[in-house]
Amino acid sequence: MATDVFTPSLQHVLDFAGIFVFAISGALAAVRRNYDVFGMAVLAEVTALGGGLFRDLVIGAVPPAAFTDAGSFSPPLIATALVFFLHPEVERINSLVNVFDAAGLGLFCVTGTIKAHDYGLGLVPSAALGLATAAGGGVLRDLLAMEVPSLLRWDRDLYAVPALVGAGLVAVLIRFDALTGPSSALAALVAFVLRLLAMRFHWRAPRAWHRRSAALQEE
Amino acid sequence: MATDVFTPSLQHVLDFAGIFVFAISGALAAVRRNYDVFGMAVLAEVTALGGGLFRDLVIGAVPPAAFTDAGSFSPPLIATALVFFLHPEVERINSLVNVFDAAGLGLFCVTGTIKAHDYGLGLVPSAALGLATAAGGGVLRDLLAMEVPSLLRWDRDLYAVPALVGAGLVAVLIRFDALTGPSSALAALVAFVLRLLAMRFHWRAPRAWHRRSAALQEE
Amino acid sequence: MATDVFTPSLQHVLDFAGIFVFAISGALAAVRRNYDVFGMAVLAEVTALGGGLFRDLVIGAVPPAAFTDAGSFSPPLIATALVFFLHPEVERINSLVNVFDAAGLGLFCVTGTIKAHDYGLGLVPSAALGLATAAGGGVLRDLLAMEVPSLLRWDRDLYAVPALVGAGLVAVLIRFDALTGPSSALAALVAFVLRLLAMRFHWRAPRAWHRRSAALQEE
Repeated sequence: MATDVFTPSLQHVLDFAGIFVFAISGALAAVRRNYDVFGMAVLAEVTALGGGLFRDLVIGAVPPAAFTDAGSFSPPLIATALVFFLHPEVERINSLVNVFDAAGLGLFCVTGTIKAHDYGLGLVPSAALGLATAAGGGVLRDLLAMEVPSLLRWDRDLYAVPALVGAGLVAVLIRFDALTGPSSALAALVAFVLRLLAMRFHWRAPRAWHRRSAALQEE
Repeated sequence: MATDVFTPSLQHVLDFAGIFVFAISGALAAVRRNYDVFGMAVLAEVTALGGGLFRDLVIGAVPPAAFTDAGSFSPPLIATALVFFLHPEVERINSLVNVFDAAGLGLFCVTGTIKAHDYGLGLVPSAALGLATAAGGGVLRDLLAMEVPSLLRWDRDLYAVPALVGAGLVAVLIRFDALTGPSSALAALVAFVLRLLAMRFHWRAPRAWHRRSAALQEE
Repeated sequence: MATDVFTPSLQHVLDFAGIFVFAISGALAAVRRNYDVFGMAVLAEVTALGGGLFRDLVIGAVPPAAFTDAGSFSPPLIATALVFFLHPEVERINSLVNVFDAAGLGLFCVTGTIKAHDYGLGLVPSAALGLATAAGGGVLRDLLAMEVPSLLRWDRDLYAVPALVGAGLVAVLIRFDALTGPSSALAALVAFVLRLLAMRFHWRAPRAWHRRSAALQEE
């Protein structure tokens, strides 16, 4: 199975790291909403595992990896404990958390696309599921925190576009039979760097044309 | 498979049209919430494909049609582009959009019920899934737009009841072995006309008895 | 199949009762939000069947029990009719409803864990799905009612922990080959009593450490 882009052990470390940083962002969102420690654990698990769970349900990979890999549940619980005891310190290194989150985004959009294609989906649906794998957990986190999904807001730095570029690159690589460990890593790196640049330079997506001018007048 | 109620080519045109008008309503909801163009695309895709996706997951038709039919992703993207560039014009013909939406509702409640029954579900669950196919995308749209699902609000014209009548008619037709192209089309037409009448005459569903009188006093 | 913890007929009565009381809480939430009778039915069905539906999708038991057991749809509709006509009376016996809800919680966390394990999941994922079976419907109810899921709020009495204890007990019983009718009933009883005690003594879960002191100063 081509899902393992990197060597199995490296892949495992990267998966663990991606799940962990997504879980941190979920636990922090729960603290900001004044949820209790149990709510923190739920948001950590949902943020970290929700995107992959959706992908696995769609491609028919049941039970989903989140429920078969023994190690899936633990990283979000560790992240919850960390945020529970060291919340101010974790908030202080929030920009560092965002860098790791960008790394998780790059990694998951690539592995999500590859896994969907392994299960027989076409290139466009595979890339769409790669995006859903990377960004879906964050949408579920925001819904459970009763916040407008930051993925959809015009006043947030680009999040989906880097993942879409990474997933699209993988689809192109598959199309031309050029998917290898290094080329997948490159696609993940492109998504990662694009997200970092989007945060650094506050890149944003446009809103509907005439709506935008109306909104400016309102301000 | 009896899912194709009409001739394949007509069925395809109708599916495309239903997906397209649902997507328009999703993109418009995103503009009203001030989402960016990417949020518009997400809401368009979710509104158009969400109901069918839920149905396919429940009946075990994985990967769902939304991820295998090459043409499923495109209509929502076209709808997004249209609303992006011509938002005021699309809003202006909103009542026309509502007519098409009613047509999509009629079509999807019928095809959804038939597909669920094809996969071995009983008549009542099939009709329930027909309703979910037709109305589920709109509920997901409202959740992502952080709005009370219009399906559930007492001050909105009946939306689910027409779909339920259409789905129920199909179940009755199946029960009496009378499901044909014309009879399915009739069921879709009944749902369509009921929805148009509900909009024209502002038909609404009642609220709980004593709550209602209390609410009137509050006003 | 070991899912039937008790004699089939008793199990059936208990399932019916659990679905029914969850549905009552869904219909009441809809009335509080001023939804119409159709919204009441949707929330009743979702609250009662949502947790089990999620579990069945994850373990690949499709179509889910909610769509194959002929009797699944009816209890929520009866609950809806009851609340529709007798809303003030039902509100008045709300504490009695909460007792039945606690019983449903105890029952569903046990049967959910057993069913997940029957489908080949490990002990920890099975217990997690047992919790999701018992508490998932309530989360969906709150999302559709546009309310912060009470499961996650720090100012609500413990709800998930009793279910987690019950599900964990079942996992331990399975591990030591000690799962029998009486021992499962005991696990359900422990969860039930813990929930009653949590309501009686307002047991709550802690929030993140330094956040908590900050929040106290705010008050």
